[in-house]
Amino acid sequence: MSAEPRLFIDQPLSGGARLELDRDAAHYLVNVMRLKPGAPVRLFNGRDGEWRAQVAEAGKRAAALSVSERLRAQAASPDVHLYFAPVKRARTDFIVEKATELGAGLIGPVMTRRTNAERVRTDRLAATAREAAEQTERLDLPVIAEPVALDRLIAGWDPARRLIFCDEAGEEGEKPWGGEAGRARPIREALEDRRDEGPWAILIGPEGGFDASERELLRAQGFVVPVSLGPRILRADTAAAAALSVWQAVRGDWG
Amino acid sequence: MSAEPRLFIDQPLSGGARLELDRDAAHYLVNVMRLKPGAPVRLFNGRDGEWRAQVAEAGKRAAALSVSERLRAQAASPDVHLYFAPVKRARTDFIVEKATELGAGLIGPVMTRRTNAERVRTDRLAATAREAAEQTERLDLPVIAEPVALDRLIAGWDPARRLIFCDEAGEEGEKPWGGEAGRARPIREALEDRRDEGPWAILIGPEGGFDASERELLRAQGFVVPVSLGPRILRADTAAAAALSVWQAVRGDWG
Repeated sequence: MSAEPRLFIDQPLSGGARLELDRDAAHYLVNVMRLKPGAPVRLFNGRDGEWRAQVAEAGKRAAALSVSERLRAQAASPDVHLYFAPVKRARTDFIVEKATELGAGLIGPVMTRRTNAERVRTDRLAATAREAAEQTERLDLPVIAEPVALDRLIAGWDPARRLIFCDEAGEEGEKPWGGEAGRARPIREALEDRRDEGPWAILIGPEGGFDASERELLRAQGFVVPVSLGPRILRADTAAAAALSVWQAVRGDWG
Repeated sequence: MSAEPRLFIDQPLSGGARLELDRDAAHYLVNVMRLKPGAPVRLFNGRDGEWRAQVAEAGKRAAALSVSERLRAQAASPDVHLYFAPVKRARTDFIVEKATELGAGLIGPVMTRRTNAERVRTDRLAATAREAAEQTERLDLPVIAEPVALDRLIAGWDPARRLIFCDEAGEEGEKPWGGEAGRARPIREALEDRRDEGPWAILIGPEGGFDASERELLRAQGFVVPVSLGPRILRADTAAAAALSVWQAVRGDWG
């Protein structure tokens, strides 16, 4: 954990720029971080790389930063999206935090038959993602997509993007792919075997698992790659972190 | 999530056995789960596989189960241990939960120079691990080791067990292996390259990272394999879940 604050700021960054902060950002800087004029911070905006800046003004109602030099050039992130069925609030927050740390470019809630989250606060998810990005040295924020029903997601899918389908929770403790004669392959094997270098996404099911019609829908799609995450049943948040980790190790930028 | 309770019970399991439950287990079964006589449960004890049982007695102070048939034979888990520097309570619990789901055989807190957890309640960690094992269809519980200082852990290490060393938090946002000319290799490459099929362990550093002398100590050991988990800085709990996931995918039972 670096002692120097690292902040996402949605303003253009260039040497010599002076950035007036909005009220929330000023409050955070002055009252929460207790930064004084001259204190160094690092900034990123998802477009212009990472920059060194100093606190130029730190008043009760207004604060400003002056940008000095660029520390890192903007770099592209691996192109992997994470779709998940919202679970209890703490675990949903956790999925967003971990997916951000693990480099997902887009994080999207998906409503399934067995999803019992009535409402998903995407503004809260965005705040969680932003904080995680600040911590994790990312140069961009993941896009937080609006919740979408599974059938609509599939209907509008770009078939060039492979969709890894992890269906953890089966019936009565049995892995759902158990009876399907190996259609779901071990995740590493499935990722290594594909020759195409196109974009990818990962889909994590709800606590109760996808229902039979949802599984049928998914398995009928040419872009869907059903995978297994081993013999133990993983909770949704664990499955999300596990699948993203293996994806990054095999296909992403962990090489 | 299965509707039928699945419980760890530290008693021998065999067909026809009657198991008297201790007070805590009886309370859980009768008052929390609200099970009535005749209700089915699944049991495991880490030795005898998984068994079907029924509630035989469900009183206010006493409860008993009668064991019927075996559902699964005991199976060996992959031999991987997780050592981690305790962090804040919620994240420590999370590490134990995730490590259990991801199949670690032993979970051990390690005290480092920058570890600022005064006290580690291993009884609480054991309860967290037990609950996670019940959920995740494991047939055994991970061993929860007593906290140990890093230098003592290393001094007593069995050199036949490889130790994957993940040191996420560097100085000022710089990855600690950045300046060491590639001594830390991408985790997948490091795991695939080893010919030996012996046991493994994973070591996750504290929030502030290992200090220079600790890194030196670790890198001087022949059994230590320094690895990189990509260009983003992962929190300790994320690094634990990520390293275990990739280990299971490459070396463990996810094949």
